[in-house]
Amino acid sequence: MNKVITLLTDFGLRDPYVASMKGVILSINPSAVIVDLSHEVARHDVKAAALLLWASYRFFPEGTIHVVVVDPGVGTARRPLAIKTKRYFFVGPDNGVLMMAALDDGLMEVREITNPSFMLSIVSPTFHGRDVFAPTAAKISLHHNAFKEVGPCVKDPVSLSPPTYSIKNHVAIGEVIHIDIFGNIVTSIPSRVVEELVGYGGKCEIKVGIKRIETKLVKAYAEVKEGETLLVPDSFGLAEIAINKGDAASFYNVKVGDRVEIKSLA
Amino acid sequence: MNKVITLLTDFGLRDPYVASMKGVILSINPSAVIVDLSHEVARHDVKAAALLLWASYRFFPEGTIHVVVVDPGVGTARRPLAIKTKRYFFVGPDNGVLMMAALDDGLMEVREITNPSFMLSIVSPTFHGRDVFAPTAAKISLHHNAFKEVGPCVKDPVSLSPPTYSIKNHVAIGEVIHIDIFGNIVTSIPSRVVEELVGYGGKCEIKVGIKRIETKLVKAYAEVKEGETLLVPDSFGLAEIAINKGDAASFYNVKVGDRVEIKSLA
Amino acid sequence: MNKVITLLTDFGLRDPYVASMKGVILSINPSAVIVDLSHEVARHDVKAAALLLWASYRFFPEGTIHVVVVDPGVGTARRPLAIKTKRYFFVGPDNGVLMMAALDDGLMEVREITNPSFMLSIVSPTFHGRDVFAPTAAKISLHHNAFKEVGPCVKDPVSLSPPTYSIKNHVAIGEVIHIDIFGNIVTSIPSRVVEELVGYGGKCEIKVGIKRIETKLVKAYAEVKEGETLLVPDSFGLAEIAINKGDAASFYNVKVGDRVEIKSLA
Repeated sequence: MNKVITLLTDFGLRDPYVASMKGVILSINPSAVIVDLSHEVARHDVKAAALLLWASYRFFPEGTIHVVVVDPGVGTARRPLAIKTKRYFFVGPDNGVLMMAALDDGLMEVREITNPSFMLSIVSPTFHGRDVFAPTAAKISLHHNAFKEVGPCVKDPVSLSPPTYSIKNHVAIGEVIHIDIFGNIVTSIPSRVVEELVGYGGKCEIKVGIKRIETKLVKAYAEVKEGETLLVPDSFGLAEIAINKGDAASFYNVKVGDRVEIKSLA
Repeated sequence: MNKVITLLTDFGLRDPYVASMKGVILSINPSAVIVDLSHEVARHDVKAAALLLWASYRFFPEGTIHVVVVDPGVGTARRPLAIKTKRYFFVGPDNGVLMMAALDDGLMEVREITNPSFMLSIVSPTFHGRDVFAPTAAKISLHHNAFKEVGPCVKDPVSLSPPTYSIKNHVAIGEVIHIDIFGNIVTSIPSRVVEELVGYGGKCEIKVGIKRIETKLVKAYAEVKEGETLLVPDSFGLAEIAINKGDAASFYNVKVGDRVEIKSLA
Repeated sequence: MNKVITLLTDFGLRDPYVASMKGVILSINPSAVIVDLSHEVARHDVKAAALLLWASYRFFPEGTIHVVVVDPGVGTARRPLAIKTKRYFFVGPDNGVLMMAALDDGLMEVREITNPSFMLSIVSPTFHGRDVFAPTAAKISLHHNAFKEVGPCVKDPVSLSPPTYSIKNHVAIGEVIHIDIFGNIVTSIPSRVVEELVGYGGKCEIKVGIKRIETKLVKAYAEVKEGETLLVPDSFGLAEIAINKGDAASFYNVKVGDRVEIKSLA
């Protein structure tokens, strides 16, 4: 049985928060395999964490338990959830952070964690990551059937609207959903859409924020010269605006949420 | 048998220091389970590392071997130590970094690492983490009884005085012992002390550094409005001064070591 | 059989790139043991990554598979490689990043990864780390003999010239090859060379960049006072210029590539 547990938090790695969660998991299931998804989500940025989970959850083996602790409402009435989807489990707060990935994989069952045997004996109101989510994930990793016992079914989990795009008059319209560490600008427009509209090697016009860029659609960064702008399919299936060996987001002064329009110049 | 080894250093993760330690451990015990406690301790900050270890060591399974390499005296006469406590092992330099946690768990035996079979064949004078502490931890993880063979007993290990607090005329007096990545201010005053003095929901006055703050004791950050200050039990049993979704340490210009006074305003 | 796979990239840990690679590896080999070498290589700095790999590869158990993804040419004609050496495997792009370590260990066989069964079913042109290198490493970790099947032999892999040094008129001449997180200045001059030229405790003159430093060769940082400069054997066998509890690179304004000369003042 798969015993992989991933952790995605906004805790950073300086404080002992993440390590404490790992200690709790290994105390319950010594053979759990723990993988860090990321701990550098911007503090309390539920939407960014939801996107990051959505982008990477699918590369893990079936049965993996994905734990997310980006949880500004910790200690309040927001429910702690465990979710079963077609291929995975998700554990975290009921603030939408889990649902974009869970819906993408195919929702099976959402449960509220209420069973005290899935928590530490003392639950701190400020650290459910360690005291509720880590032990719940560890228990499920021991016996996947344990999921049934975490608590009652939830019919109305909080959802975030996933990023959207539209096509009007041969113009693809979307938004900037992520800027990666290299400054590459990830848009909400699927790369297959720009493939159809522009075609590889084809010239296109991109409006992003207040900038207007003429460039072409290519398959790899190094197809253009150093310092030149390109439109490229990113590795998660989305259209990405980049500068070969440069930082496109800084250069064009673009931020998450900015509107993006892409049209062919052919 | 438990084969968890935790690593706590001031090495950061850019250089190959931590990875080299992991390679050495896995060369000796291929089934060791290595967990990073943190590698972002401020350089040479023995006291901060001691506190971080104390805060998190207890969440790991019994028999875990905690290795700490915050070691400004490496290569000098300071002794390399292995310590057995009631439930754990600790390995690191004799500069006090291990003892706060070790005494907290219950000291059983302190030994100096002198047996060359617990070291690499060539010991660099500048990197005992890789050449002495990693192999010692790996050997103990193979056979917990190996602890007896690391070297002679030590009667006078260096200790740091743990953070203290006092209560005078219904005022709890302590100090700032840690500022976490969110800017939350962790004090040396146990949360049960402020629970007794102030009571949940009760108003209180906090003097910290040169600031005077009126606030109340709550159980969770989100019990006050965004941007408001609160007093809250932190997740390790200590009273914490925080701003909901804000950075209290920056706002109040507070640093580690600052004096803290808390009294009820009821 | 050894199932350790190390990962060395310039991806950082904020984005889901590294985690996706780990998910792919664990999907193919659930018992792989994944160790992060570093993910903080400066973007596209192939030479720095080659040095970091060279410094640390040897501390891992025989049979370890070292994966490096510092790959500015991803998606172009540069070949994806798997290399077998005397004791290890190396997987990554054919840009020289693997060869300094591979030649050091003793080259056995270099192969181009062309067999589609060593790749994900869809290969993104922008992320061979996840889609080519991770699955290749995972497959080899399942069966070391699988190496034979990755693709045809390569006779002309790209190599970087390793850092060099020379001795002229009793002066050791080299260059700065790395500045670690503490600001310690690692040179290309082996520590045994300065041991012979200067001798422990001996005074020496160091010219580095435009600075001229009089200091002595010692075995440990703490042999000199806080704030004093020292010459010391680093933990990888190279002569290092450091300041006890200080940052030598900032203080002397030294950068990677600067020329270094060391001579005895006896």
